[in-house]
Amino acid sequence: MTYIDGGVTGPRGFAAAGIACGLKKNSTPDLALVFSESPAVAAGVFTTNKVKAAPVIVSQEHLAAASARAVVINSGNANACLGEQGLADARAVAAKTAGLLQVSPNEILLGSTGVIGVPLPVGKILEALPALVDSLSPTGGAAAARAIMTTDTRPKECACCLELGGGEVRIGGMAKGAGMIHPKMATLLGVITTDARVERELLREALREVTALTFNRITVDGDTSTNDTVFLLANGMADAPPVTRGRSLEEFKAGLYEVAVHLAKMLVQDGEGATKFITVRVTGAATEEEAETAARAVANSNLVKTAFFGEDANWGRILAAVGYSGIDFSPETTGITLGGLAVFKDGRGLPFSEEEAKRILKAPEAEVVINLHRGAAEATIWTCDFSYDYVKINASYRS
Amino acid sequence: MTYIDGGVTGPRGFAAAGIACGLKKNSTPDLALVFSESPAVAAGVFTTNKVKAAPVIVSQEHLAAASARAVVINSGNANACLGEQGLADARAVAAKTAGLLQVSPNEILLGSTGVIGVPLPVGKILEALPALVDSLSPTGGAAAARAIMTTDTRPKECACCLELGGGEVRIGGMAKGAGMIHPKMATLLGVITTDARVERELLREALREVTALTFNRITVDGDTSTNDTVFLLANGMADAPPVTRGRSLEEFKAGLYEVAVHLAKMLVQDGEGATKFITVRVTGAATEEEAETAARAVANSNLVKTAFFGEDANWGRILAAVGYSGIDFSPETTGITLGGLAVFKDGRGLPFSEEEAKRILKAPEAEVVINLHRGAAEATIWTCDFSYDYVKINASYRS
Repeated sequence: MTYIDGGVTGPRGFAAAGIACGLKKNSTPDLALVFSESPAVAAGVFTTNKVKAAPVIVSQEHLAAASARAVVINSGNANACLGEQGLADARAVAAKTAGLLQVSPNEILLGSTGVIGVPLPVGKILEALPALVDSLSPTGGAAAARAIMTTDTRPKECACCLELGGGEVRIGGMAKGAGMIHPKMATLLGVITTDARVERELLREALREVTALTFNRITVDGDTSTNDTVFLLANGMADAPPVTRGRSLEEFKAGLYEVAVHLAKMLVQDGEGATKFITVRVTGAATEEEAETAARAVANSNLVKTAFFGEDANWGRILAAVGYSGIDFSPETTGITLGGLAVFKDGRGLPFSEEEAKRILKAPEAEVVINLHRGAAEATIWTCDFSYDYVKINASYRS
Repeated sequence: MTYIDGGVTGPRGFAAAGIACGLKKNSTPDLALVFSESPAVAAGVFTTNKVKAAPVIVSQEHLAAASARAVVINSGNANACLGEQGLADARAVAAKTAGLLQVSPNEILLGSTGVIGVPLPVGKILEALPALVDSLSPTGGAAAARAIMTTDTRPKECACCLELGGGEVRIGGMAKGAGMIHPKMATLLGVITTDARVERELLREALREVTALTFNRITVDGDTSTNDTVFLLANGMADAPPVTRGRSLEEFKAGLYEVAVHLAKMLVQDGEGATKFITVRVTGAATEEEAETAARAVANSNLVKTAFFGEDANWGRILAAVGYSGIDFSPETTGITLGGLAVFKDGRGLPFSEEEAKRILKAPEAEVVINLHRGAAEATIWTCDFSYDYVKINASYRS
């Protein structure tokens, strides 16, 4: 497997575009389109929040169709909590895009990110759609990745190619903003494309499994948005045999995992106010679920995250977070290492060099490993530290 | 019911003291004692954290005894995560205190708060115990309340008296620090005293019920410490008939609630970096548990808390937090008010005066009411906003 350029337009038969339609100030790009030249099999995973934005509801309906042709995403407005009007606006965007692309409206998938509760200026989007379609390009992935940003400081995209059954398959993706970033701004959005030929059942399985291990293993602030969405489109245009259950499906999942985990880590690295990327790994658990529960509690702890910001080797907070996570474990058999440095073992803190700890915690990345010594299962959650800038970014302005 | 002075020494037959034994710098008081002249019936509630500090474990053992006579609390060190040595140190403090007071060691209850994982300088405590016992005074409540502080900016105590069965009963209490405050510092500690005569079963029931509605209804940062403890001692020295099941128990619980809720609110008002006191009330829920779950999600949301710091009427974040709380509800029938101002109704944001919202959010206290329109149950959680100072206080120093 090798990384290639192109993001969502890395795979064959995909074009993309990103333009400004006026939802954001200063002609900042805010409208993106990803298009597949041929009908694609599609899968989606969505927010678990009971409050679902209109594009989430409409996309869930459209995924019942046999194929998908395009994804339209706007930034600057979440189209959430707007009742029937929000749904009507989302459907209007799908309908007009479908007309321009000469496909069926239910072949259009949608995503939105931005302010909650403010009516979508749908006129601006509808007016800009012809120009958006006109600017579709087989190298448009970067423009699309830029247009879906909100308070992200940089676009996130990546692509790879892998050998599959004697042929070459490509997988590409883009994503934006982990956590609910700007006031009333929200949302993790991701679009992954591939030229592999994959039937719907297998595609959905692959996306579900890989998302659980990647986009669902990151946390910035523990808040789940109303708009979270990841789409996966497979158009079968690669010169490779179809993906079938068994070895080729596993190879496809491995490639999908690479793209997804790469994007997921980029989201954490660009988390609000983040100065450090932190890997929390729980090993020696009885079950993977237990490991994930404990890792998530540590990764979500404000006290652990502020300690990392302060470069403080504060294992007491890490152990306390495992303690309140709800899992069954014994501190007496638990071990904790920070960047390889053992700080806690057998129910007691170990003497360690504060200098060595400071050196480890000064680095832009740090790994915490918590060994429960209860079994062989493990899980990893990626998070970032918690700085003044998180409070600053989230405290006030709704402009 | 009327408020009186005296804190834990407000009720008859209690003495208290607070002195400096050298666990903290600059002769800051760090050792407190509450003593009952006659054997008291005792109850305790403790942290649900799997990692329990030594004083928690020892106190749980001692509560099996028929009576209690004293509570010893040190600040500056949590005596947590120290294995057998921590337990031995806690038992040594209980034994020496018991000898000085001429009571049984299992009549001594213990609390500690401070750095986790650093061995307790037990010698300093043992050496100071005679002076501590010597300074016991029937007006010593304030000194004790001061000696249990860590990063609290002010001591917290209150007392009240109520009529009960034709007699007068007094209830007093002190508490410290909600949330895990100082790096590796922890802990909510509370001691409540009463001169009511209450049998053990009823006392435990009263403490359990009242704590669930007061100390367990506050949140500062969502982290549960290894040392959380609330004790309740009843010495029966009031000139009043014993509390019995029925009306007098309900009256006693009402008085206990007043003292506990007063202390709990003081803890939130003095939360780390807090600039605002926020009441989150969920009404119209199908069950009280459902209301509590939703209110807790809102009160724990970093995004909601930073918005309050920024005085931003951000109902989208409040609704989103209810949405991921896990309860079953419909946004279409939900209403939200901020300080009485309706901002969301029937699935949609309402137009409201930003000026009016700003005026409401500038006040030091704010109430959010979320009406689910599903039933008649409700629950309240008290929390504070989330400021730069929370990050500052928690980022670094372990000195």
